[in-house]
Amino acid sequence: MQIGVVGLGRMGANISRRLMRAGHSSVVWDANPKAIEAVGHDGATMATGLPDLVAKLGGSPKAVWVMLPHGKITEDTINALAGLMSKGDIVIDGGNTYYKDDIRRAKALAAKGLRYVDVGTSGGVWGLERGYCMMIGGETEAVKHLDPIFAALAPGMGDIPRTPGREGRDPRAEQGYIHAGPPGAGHFVKMVHNGIEYGMMQAFAEGFDILRNKASTQLPEDHRFNLNMGDIAEVWRRGSVVSSWLLDLTADALAKDENLDAFSGEVEDSGEGRWTIEAAIEEAVPAEVLSASLFTRFRSRQDHTFAEKILSAMRFGFGGHVEPAKK
Amino acid sequence: MQIGVVGLGRMGANISRRLMRAGHSSVVWDANPKAIEAVGHDGATMATGLPDLVAKLGGSPKAVWVMLPHGKITEDTINALAGLMSKGDIVIDGGNTYYKDDIRRAKALAAKGLRYVDVGTSGGVWGLERGYCMMIGGETEAVKHLDPIFAALAPGMGDIPRTPGREGRDPRAEQGYIHAGPPGAGHFVKMVHNGIEYGMMQAFAEGFDILRNKASTQLPEDHRFNLNMGDIAEVWRRGSVVSSWLLDLTADALAKDENLDAFSGEVEDSGEGRWTIEAAIEEAVPAEVLSASLFTRFRSRQDHTFAEKILSAMRFGFGGHVEPAKK
Amino acid sequence: MQIGVVGLGRMGANISRRLMRAGHSSVVWDANPKAIEAVGHDGATMATGLPDLVAKLGGSPKAVWVMLPHGKITEDTINALAGLMSKGDIVIDGGNTYYKDDIRRAKALAAKGLRYVDVGTSGGVWGLERGYCMMIGGETEAVKHLDPIFAALAPGMGDIPRTPGREGRDPRAEQGYIHAGPPGAGHFVKMVHNGIEYGMMQAFAEGFDILRNKASTQLPEDHRFNLNMGDIAEVWRRGSVVSSWLLDLTADALAKDENLDAFSGEVEDSGEGRWTIEAAIEEAVPAEVLSASLFTRFRSRQDHTFAEKILSAMRFGFGGHVEPAKK
Amino acid sequence: MQIGVVGLGRMGANISRRLMRAGHSSVVWDANPKAIEAVGHDGATMATGLPDLVAKLGGSPKAVWVMLPHGKITEDTINALAGLMSKGDIVIDGGNTYYKDDIRRAKALAAKGLRYVDVGTSGGVWGLERGYCMMIGGETEAVKHLDPIFAALAPGMGDIPRTPGREGRDPRAEQGYIHAGPPGAGHFVKMVHNGIEYGMMQAFAEGFDILRNKASTQLPEDHRFNLNMGDIAEVWRRGSVVSSWLLDLTADALAKDENLDAFSGEVEDSGEGRWTIEAAIEEAVPAEVLSASLFTRFRSRQDHTFAEKILSAMRFGFGGHVEPAKK
Repeated sequence: MQIGVVGLGRMGANISRRLMRAGHSSVVWDANPKAIEAVGHDGATMATGLPDLVAKLGGSPKAVWVMLPHGKITEDTINALAGLMSKGDIVIDGGNTYYKDDIRRAKALAAKGLRYVDVGTSGGVWGLERGYCMMIGGETEAVKHLDPIFAALAPGMGDIPRTPGREGRDPRAEQGYIHAGPPGAGHFVKMVHNGIEYGMMQAFAEGFDILRNKASTQLPEDHRFNLNMGDIAEVWRRGSVVSSWLLDLTADALAKDENLDAFSGEVEDSGEGRWTIEAAIEEAVPAEVLSASLFTRFRSRQDHTFAEKILSAMRFGFGGHVEPAKK
Repeated sequence: MQIGVVGLGRMGANISRRLMRAGHSSVVWDANPKAIEAVGHDGATMATGLPDLVAKLGGSPKAVWVMLPHGKITEDTINALAGLMSKGDIVIDGGNTYYKDDIRRAKALAAKGLRYVDVGTSGGVWGLERGYCMMIGGETEAVKHLDPIFAALAPGMGDIPRTPGREGRDPRAEQGYIHAGPPGAGHFVKMVHNGIEYGMMQAFAEGFDILRNKASTQLPEDHRFNLNMGDIAEVWRRGSVVSSWLLDLTADALAKDENLDAFSGEVEDSGEGRWTIEAAIEEAVPAEVLSASLFTRFRSRQDHTFAEKILSAMRFGFGGHVEPAKK
Repeated sequence: MQIGVVGLGRMGANISRRLMRAGHSSVVWDANPKAIEAVGHDGATMATGLPDLVAKLGGSPKAVWVMLPHGKITEDTINALAGLMSKGDIVIDGGNTYYKDDIRRAKALAAKGLRYVDVGTSGGVWGLERGYCMMIGGETEAVKHLDPIFAALAPGMGDIPRTPGREGRDPRAEQGYIHAGPPGAGHFVKMVHNGIEYGMMQAFAEGFDILRNKASTQLPEDHRFNLNMGDIAEVWRRGSVVSSWLLDLTADALAKDENLDAFSGEVEDSGEGRWTIEAAIEEAVPAEVLSASLFTRFRSRQDHTFAEKILSAMRFGFGGHVEPAKK
Repeated sequence: MQIGVVGLGRMGANISRRLMRAGHSSVVWDANPKAIEAVGHDGATMATGLPDLVAKLGGSPKAVWVMLPHGKITEDTINALAGLMSKGDIVIDGGNTYYKDDIRRAKALAAKGLRYVDVGTSGGVWGLERGYCMMIGGETEAVKHLDPIFAALAPGMGDIPRTPGREGRDPRAEQGYIHAGPPGAGHFVKMVHNGIEYGMMQAFAEGFDILRNKASTQLPEDHRFNLNMGDIAEVWRRGSVVSSWLLDLTADALAKDENLDAFSGEVEDSGEGRWTIEAAIEEAVPAEVLSASLFTRFRSRQDHTFAEKILSAMRFGFGGHVEPAKK
């Protein structure tokens, strides 16, 4: 099967490569000519722009996978493709788009006879080798048509044991991809996935912080422990209930440097964490842990919040407390 | 009535003064001779040490108010007094002692025939003029005996309107002091009071932070507001449901400097905030807000937590994300 | 000065009355004829509909205060008024509108030459007597024109002490109203005000929960206290740093029934709490306390969350733990 | 090697069995004779009481593994053993003891020449087959002496890939056990492990709650999705960054019943979650996520909190809001 791929960053380029490894062909384009050449070198047909990419795609319906940062660039690219493609063709947004944008776009494209499929794609830098876990939204026929593509990108069952009781259920989930629902459903599930990821990461982060500070000289001497962060992460990978891919990654990092001195401690957040909290609020679902995980990232990027100064100002006003002088 | 006062910091000295203004007399001691002289200058009898202080107290039972930082110094002082005082005498701990220490101490003193009264004292630097709000633990007879002292220290009804429906209830609450229960109950109520204070402060702090950052250039231009922090704090003092003493103090600070540049943003915490969370945990009471208020103070005193570095390390491991370089 | 008032619920009717008490006149309308009669009985000119209301307003520019539940009904009413009013006339939205709707509406009305003023109005059932604290957004000329209205509705300085250092600043804040900024700024400040209110309420709620559960029989017997909730709320009103209007209300309720048996414990939330968190997220401001306050309300309205069942399912899967049987 | 095992519940019995499978022998006792017989049937030497158990243990030093619920029963059993054992003998506490109790006990036993080893043991109902992940505290010689026991109980490397960069580090961590530090360190690490577990569980729980409530009829119709919980859990096991043992367990449960109707939603908590927060507070480490995870469990076991009634009472007092009537 042939597919167009627009956006050849880390994710897009490797998606193209993994498809070719499985025998599919791809026509690729990126704003950066070097990115095109790199994937072209690996066998992809190189396009000179969106019109050329659509023209070079054979067969019908045509399908183009857009893999760009969420926001204006994705929006503009999809609009441009919509002007170039024909009735029944399929636009796939594999990026990290806000699911409400998917719902809106799918309606706009449907009005032109085009079909829109959103794919939440997890896999990071590991996807080329391990495969991508995909959560797909779109109408059933379009998703079915693309099945060979999804099957090729997905990890497959590998050596992960089967979940008992799944007999008779949708077998795609075991292969690593699901058709979650109508347009937007794929990115919605991916969004919550990332929200959960934030929470799990923060759970580990707080735990290791407590372990490390057990050596604090502020504690009574006979209550202090100098614990080995790397050994602890490693042992938990073996038979403990917190074993997980995130723990594996933590063990990797701690094996290299137990103090993590290379990391500044400023932590970015992506849209999915924010949108997950907004979804929780819209649904009136309590989300204490997911929101706290987001807020700690906000805090990590500031020297001091105005909130903290307000606290100090009140303390001074009430009790005459003078906080440590400004540095 | 006569009372000994040990510990003549901001609180102890003013307690002594407010008692003298009401016609009571006090015998005072502090490790710092200048502190003794200052209160002596205002009319107190100056002692040269704990034995001298106890000796100079006339009448029976004798009563000594200890007003020292919680912990070892209070513990040692009370033990020393216990060795100097006689059956029926009363030791008052007016500091910020952990209520479990009160329970333990009261038992130890009772074994010697002494009585122990714990007084949670709120009033800060304002107490001398406005009076102190007091939450008292101890056996009924001892608390009754000290009633003239408490009545003199309390603010009284002032011009604060009476709460409808309190007819027939303990009139002391309206005067600004309560006998909360047996030893420890006074400090327990004061502890929770401070826990609530943390939560209220943090609520204001977050709110003003959101107001101030509405001017952020990261927002779309037509969604930005340059709000006047000082005017907002002021207007809320008038008829709004968030009107409160803490808001008054915030308005004071913002009237002086809307940017609060004098404050570093590092916020101390005292024992009461921590003990309140421990009490909540012992009782299995959810305390999301009070705990979050405490944790933001912990965070305010660090450049970066180890937790944040763990987050960055995972992000790098999974997605190849490189956070801003360490400064 | 004359003003139209549309929406004569608890707030709208009393705003009309307070204006009339101050010598202003009002033309009023509501979908409910009885509501119109009640205010008409107190001196307002009764209209038969929006066209009649606009027609009966004399002078120029005309001004209409809309006081309706936020959402569709406010939107429709303002659109209808826009069709009836003339260049330079002023529409005031005094309800709890989302500030982004204000920004959008003000632009739409400006295109027709109309002016839009948003007023965040705090005062609850107490406003008629105490006055309303108002946070106003709109262009300067329109807000100035309405100043007599705002001055009449505001509480004025009353016996609340002045904040030192405010000399030379906008005197309106001390009277109980501010011109916060362009359209939307009034409701934005009111929104954050309500967010803070949530946090303060939750701080008190958690504190009293901890106080009450100190009597739990799950605690060691010598660590239990049977505390008097009503006396504690009362005493804190006198000289304590948590003294506040919300505490006064709590003392009122506890004086009537210390067990609060009349209350189900299901707590509604309004849009402002939710929008405050969304604003925090947009600005990347940590808001742990405000969000936790919102989430406890969500939780209060459910028997059990799906989240809790997920927890139990994991516990069973890992440890064979069987939670208490479903009732 | 021979070892005594006291306490033959789910964990103790299987520990005994796994040791025997590895060629070690065990002498066992439990308050329940049937529990003794069951393990005796599998090859263990059955004791009639603690004295008999100690007597039947050959060689020197003797070692007894105590596997009982934390608290009084463990304390009493260890004290009894201490009276029966001889200089150099080793008492192992493999339960979920509070690490401060370990520190205290180790000192007390050391005064009698006995050695104390605490083992945080993770593995749940899966340990017999998969092996136990162990975090060990104690003096180096005692831990070394017991190494064959730990090696037999641990999972070993299995097919879990090695962490790059661990060459030259303590090889035991890769086998599934670590010597974390002096007495108490083992249980401390296990305690934090469980704290992290709470946080991870809550992250998943909130995420699935948000996914499920996306079908809520309170949302606009075109923004609703009917998502398949079981398929989502399954697909995330394949190549997604939230893949973990806890997700496997969730997928298991959802494959059986997507509604989890068998679960009441009341969630117990164990001591470790509480102690983790206390440790965080002692160290002044922010632990928003771990504490929120604990508090949601507290809340899950109540119909309504007093806190919620306080909120409603304030709302009624201020705004006349009447919450839904008490059922």
